[in-house]
Amino acid sequence: MDNIKRVGLLGGGVIGGAWAARAVLNGMDAVVCDTDPEAERKVGEVIENARRAYSMLTIAPLPAPGTWRIVRTLEEAADGADFIQESLPEREDLKIRLLAQAETAMRPDVVIGSSTSGLLPTRLQSGLKHPERFVVGHPFNPVYLMPLVEVCGGEKTSDDTKQRAMAFYRRIGMHPLHVRKEIDGFIADRLMEALWREALWLVNDDVATTEEIDDAIRFGPGLRWAFMGTMLIYRIAGGEPGMRHFMAQFGPSLKWPWTKLMDVPELDTALLDKLCAQSDAQAAGTGIREFERLRDSCLVSIFQGLKANDYGAGRTLADYEKRLWSAQGRDAVAIAVKPEPLRLYEGRVEPGWLDYNGHMNESRYLQVFSTASDALLALIGADTDYVRRGHSFYTAETHIMHLNEMRANTPFHVTTQVLGADEKRLHVWQIIHRGDDGAVVATGEHMYLHVDAKAGRAAPMLPEVRDKLAPIVVAHAGLPRPDNAGRSIGMKRKG
Amino acid sequence: MDNIKRVGLLGGGVIGGAWAARAVLNGMDAVVCDTDPEAERKVGEVIENARRAYSMLTIAPLPAPGTWRIVRTLEEAADGADFIQESLPEREDLKIRLLAQAETAMRPDVVIGSSTSGLLPTRLQSGLKHPERFVVGHPFNPVYLMPLVEVCGGEKTSDDTKQRAMAFYRRIGMHPLHVRKEIDGFIADRLMEALWREALWLVNDDVATTEEIDDAIRFGPGLRWAFMGTMLIYRIAGGEPGMRHFMAQFGPSLKWPWTKLMDVPELDTALLDKLCAQSDAQAAGTGIREFERLRDSCLVSIFQGLKANDYGAGRTLADYEKRLWSAQGRDAVAIAVKPEPLRLYEGRVEPGWLDYNGHMNESRYLQVFSTASDALLALIGADTDYVRRGHSFYTAETHIMHLNEMRANTPFHVTTQVLGADEKRLHVWQIIHRGDDGAVVATGEHMYLHVDAKAGRAAPMLPEVRDKLAPIVVAHAGLPRPDNAGRSIGMKRKG
Repeated sequence: MDNIKRVGLLGGGVIGGAWAARAVLNGMDAVVCDTDPEAERKVGEVIENARRAYSMLTIAPLPAPGTWRIVRTLEEAADGADFIQESLPEREDLKIRLLAQAETAMRPDVVIGSSTSGLLPTRLQSGLKHPERFVVGHPFNPVYLMPLVEVCGGEKTSDDTKQRAMAFYRRIGMHPLHVRKEIDGFIADRLMEALWREALWLVNDDVATTEEIDDAIRFGPGLRWAFMGTMLIYRIAGGEPGMRHFMAQFGPSLKWPWTKLMDVPELDTALLDKLCAQSDAQAAGTGIREFERLRDSCLVSIFQGLKANDYGAGRTLADYEKRLWSAQGRDAVAIAVKPEPLRLYEGRVEPGWLDYNGHMNESRYLQVFSTASDALLALIGADTDYVRRGHSFYTAETHIMHLNEMRANTPFHVTTQVLGADEKRLHVWQIIHRGDDGAVVATGEHMYLHVDAKAGRAAPMLPEVRDKLAPIVVAHAGLPRPDNAGRSIGMKRKG
Repeated sequence: MDNIKRVGLLGGGVIGGAWAARAVLNGMDAVVCDTDPEAERKVGEVIENARRAYSMLTIAPLPAPGTWRIVRTLEEAADGADFIQESLPEREDLKIRLLAQAETAMRPDVVIGSSTSGLLPTRLQSGLKHPERFVVGHPFNPVYLMPLVEVCGGEKTSDDTKQRAMAFYRRIGMHPLHVRKEIDGFIADRLMEALWREALWLVNDDVATTEEIDDAIRFGPGLRWAFMGTMLIYRIAGGEPGMRHFMAQFGPSLKWPWTKLMDVPELDTALLDKLCAQSDAQAAGTGIREFERLRDSCLVSIFQGLKANDYGAGRTLADYEKRLWSAQGRDAVAIAVKPEPLRLYEGRVEPGWLDYNGHMNESRYLQVFSTASDALLALIGADTDYVRRGHSFYTAETHIMHLNEMRANTPFHVTTQVLGADEKRLHVWQIIHRGDDGAVVATGEHMYLHVDAKAGRAAPMLPEVRDKLAPIVVAHAGLPRPDNAGRSIGMKRKG
């Protein structure tokens, strides 16, 4: 599929425009047929959204973007295209008719993917001269980001067409799922639709509002569904005995009135055996404990990602952390100032912190130092409230020396020594210690500048902070100065 | 609820053990009643899992952990507890009987939360002397991480009980959702159960295997459900006209055979008006474009979080990036070596990169420098394949100077100047330039050491890399040396 240079898009709505974005950002030209007089603006907006998303998504080198244009006839979009994607309105008769019309301008070997979310490919291909080149490629909104594309052939679709479509979708960053049996709604939309119908009942019967229904998903099961489907989640819930144990425990509840939807399959031995065998195959020998750890790590990553967006479960985490920090603030006065480096932060190396060498990535070192510095600042009263009032410490300079490595889950702690301070500056020396063997992993030397954030310039610390900092400066003044403090980077040939 | 020091847990299985973990990690003592002779080991394992998860979850200062112990009678768990959580087997008669037994040892004002996933609180509280203190608090697996807890009172539950339970759950980091109407399965389980019943049909009818069903969720709609429920997702799909437009477009499909579950509510004007009014209230004035950007940012964060775990949609992204990098590798020979700093990386400040000052967080500076260095290393052939063969560059020292700030979405690029190199060392000077006004935001000076990763010590670069690096060193040798190269951090009082 590396030979696809131009994509012909039939329909330039939300779906068609987003296909255009995927193509253009992956270096292909897109020719989009749409008769909406505003199509140019609308597709442009979708592509701009996608560009913004990709700039956040990856730092890998995207190819030079392709070109795109709107045309008014299906034939213009089809002519010269190396791949066709159809995203016309969801009416079977209309799609059949317009596909036949567009085909007159296509090369006979070009694959046509259809974005239909549930119409049957055998019927959609029925008006084509070359039906073997037609296949469903059902994407999800936003198409430029969502990986899933359900690939489903009709009776006349060739295997070659399916393979070529899947290779194309994969090339533009998607995850093709082969739907082996033709069925209304394919797989994902059947599952979404079942949930949606139940949700409509809950609104209809005044059990819950739309917002409460959404909250029941996004603070709960939806968080797991981002990386594990219901089948694996239930297998894990079954504990070591797995799926069979889960079904023994919860199978009977299929008879309970837990949804409006009481037409359920008979849970006989045949279905049970099939479920368990498929679940075993899916687990592929991975044990429950390993899945549990993977589940927890994925959840933690998602919470942290959502925290960066201050949304949903991420906001729950942020609120929780705010309470923890302010509880510590209440205890801070209790910390005695002794003539030894402060130990304000300990943690473990997260699995997500590793680089391609399998060690903690260098930027995480600065994150660890920064966290320890924040703890020092919180200790002297330069906390979030202080920042909100317009005062803050900014980092002016940092010097890090890497002396050892840390792998995933290695425990560590940071010690902080104040080397000096004046009314505007705070000079700090930090050491990351490996928890298991006590080795010094890295040293960090930092110069912080106190600023008036509104004025955007250096300014003296407020007395409330200065007075808490002073006894620490005094207590640390007698500590030996670290050998490498004030060191500069340079290269001398050693011979 | 700050006065809760000890939690009594009735039942120490997967759910009860995880409640113990939440309590202990939040500084409360847990007394767990379970008659399983292995309860001590099992609960200990769950708490260890939770401890591992929390060490990754947050760097906020958790309180000193509480104690925990297993007891064999309900009365011992209830005696002296400030809050009771019941997680006994899911049998109504059993729960009613054991709750009444445990109550004999409780103070009369202590709240009892029940973990039942669907039994009705009015029935569960029927055997209690003080039924007003009983409320359902339905959590989700893993209870120590999942935010959602559905709080549902029975006919005799007091408002004070609901408020106290919600305050307790919130204190231990959860998101309580008040289920206002008592109903089998509450809200989340009704939605999960509808999806589950449809999934069982798909297996039963050989449409899809358990793995294919899971993939249809976790590469598709499940990714959105982690932060937005079906109702908001559909509102966004409706575009600017919102929910009413979506319902006009997709309402008719409720009559289509897209699930086995054909008992759907009549979509009359009353239901339609209610849906749209609730959806408007939920959106609270936020427009579609804003929701789209939020959706995309959350999706990007989730993809990146899952990439760190090399799982699901994160692996799709990693595979995509690998292809992009290797495509660049093929083009690398085309980059001409000129006597000017290399420009190998440009990007924008992600919204998730900000610190509490609203500026790019300091650790992100090192991340940006590190990414630019990786691009340099890829350029000279020290790529992932080189690393896999056991050779790599490790960072020995870094010196960063912060000269300006960057806010969210600020475009930037990095220039890279090679200051020197020998057989084992590479000395580099980098500048982050702000894209909008060209200001120098930060400088980075780095010393990289070439290592034999297996032997764990410095080793000469392989000729294939050295030969690509040499012409860059030569081309950069004539460039002026940056003023601040070799600078050390220090403090002299300016008076």
